[in-house]
Amino acid sequence: MKRILIIGIGAGNPEYVTIQAVNALNQADVFFVMDKGPPKHKLVALRTEIIERYVKDRAYRIVQTSSPERKRDELNYVAAVRELNEEKQRVFERLIGQELSDGECGAFLVWGDPSLYDSTTRIIGAISRSGRHEFEYEVIPGISSVQALAAKHRIALNEIGQSIGITNGRRLAEGFPHDVDSVVVMLDAQNAFRQVCNEDLDIYWGAYVGTPDEILVAGKLCDVVDEIERIRADARERHGWIMDTYLLKRRRKAQQ
Amino acid sequence: MKRILIIGIGAGNPEYVTIQAVNALNQADVFFVMDKGPPKHKLVALRTEIIERYVKDRAYRIVQTSSPERKRDELNYVAAVRELNEEKQRVFERLIGQELSDGECGAFLVWGDPSLYDSTTRIIGAISRSGRHEFEYEVIPGISSVQALAAKHRIALNEIGQSIGITNGRRLAEGFPHDVDSVVVMLDAQNAFRQVCNEDLDIYWGAYVGTPDEILVAGKLCDVVDEIERIRADARERHGWIMDTYLLKRRRKAQQ
Repeated sequence: MKRILIIGIGAGNPEYVTIQAVNALNQADVFFVMDKGPPKHKLVALRTEIIERYVKDRAYRIVQTSSPERKRDELNYVAAVRELNEEKQRVFERLIGQELSDGECGAFLVWGDPSLYDSTTRIIGAISRSGRHEFEYEVIPGISSVQALAAKHRIALNEIGQSIGITNGRRLAEGFPHDVDSVVVMLDAQNAFRQVCNEDLDIYWGAYVGTPDEILVAGKLCDVVDEIERIRADARERHGWIMDTYLLKRRRKAQQ
Repeated sequence: MKRILIIGIGAGNPEYVTIQAVNALNQADVFFVMDKGPPKHKLVALRTEIIERYVKDRAYRIVQTSSPERKRDELNYVAAVRELNEEKQRVFERLIGQELSDGECGAFLVWGDPSLYDSTTRIIGAISRSGRHEFEYEVIPGISSVQALAAKHRIALNEIGQSIGITNGRRLAEGFPHDVDSVVVMLDAQNAFRQVCNEDLDIYWGAYVGTPDEILVAGKLCDVVDEIERIRADARERHGWIMDTYLLKRRRKAQQ
């Protein structure tokens, strides 16, 4: 039997790795590392750093593959992601079929937490259900960028007794949700926060959170929106990529 | 200067603790442990186990205090929590003022992640802003019960390109939100899932996730609702307390 571990390695700081993940890293015979091209080399380097730092006295192989890229189809995002996932599934099946022997354990290292806007678990699940490959698999949770952001801003995601929304830039651009007062936004390539500038909101923004390049900005959204846009553009230019997350909170009208 | 660390220790499995948390545990001179009465002794025991397991060659004190309890005011939940937090703040101020010397580091161990339905960060922030005590403080993220649940069910919280809601039993009882298709429910004392049984939903439920007492149930909500109610009642009876979380997902109408 083959074994697959989907290991959340946390978002940014190599010390976000859990003891469970360290133990899982030390069971792997093969690490599957997906490379998304030059700007994302740093993310590959971080994965390699985590393997080197935490795997002790154990032989392992690293199999690096170039990751399929999503077609920039802004009109049909879901279809584009589905297509991407089908391509990824073909890559993953090849890795499981050809790069992993019976009795061996293969690991996919997932940035942040596997349950949040990551397709690895979905794809491995689909392969398992297909019956084309026989393997056991397990998911190991990791610290997400959302939690790292909240910790660095020293803030709770929720207001007392209230709900939280987690969404993406595309959805936020359609408007701030009516029924929640705290919204986390991930995967915003377009400064969608500008679309909700007319609302009375606070923003807690962070890029490269947990890494030495970390940038944090907090304040009333309409006061800091230009600053964040400028910092984002500069950082993306300087690093070649940006990974940022933010929390928006409705400002309380006086004391409730 | 005094230092306070708010350390997320993960929800259930002692191996959910991160390397950052282990390092933080090893900086503490004093651990503040809040006891919520006999049924919750097990939670205190888990905290003590984590301290003993991870703190190496270092002297420390454990200061145990009984935690104030929220008045069971169902009519004004927010006011009851506010009042509870004011009481907790008085307790925390006493701990910081009397149990922590200048130059020492005190640690609050938070179950799960400090950013999710936990008041410690909010209270320590309020004390810091009050100016009555001088200290630095830092928040260390931890694996939340939500992530543990998703990992054990091997499922992503979000559907592709879609938003996620995180809410509590009280809010869910008002109805399943219109604008999301995946909702995580925490702090549900009343089987609120029964209120949304008429919706076409799947449920991924878990209690004591990550511990040896873990129970997982998944299925179409209307098919498993009785089973979950029965298991919940039995488990609460047997353990004296229950800590459970669940994820509800709208079932997809055919293939989108």
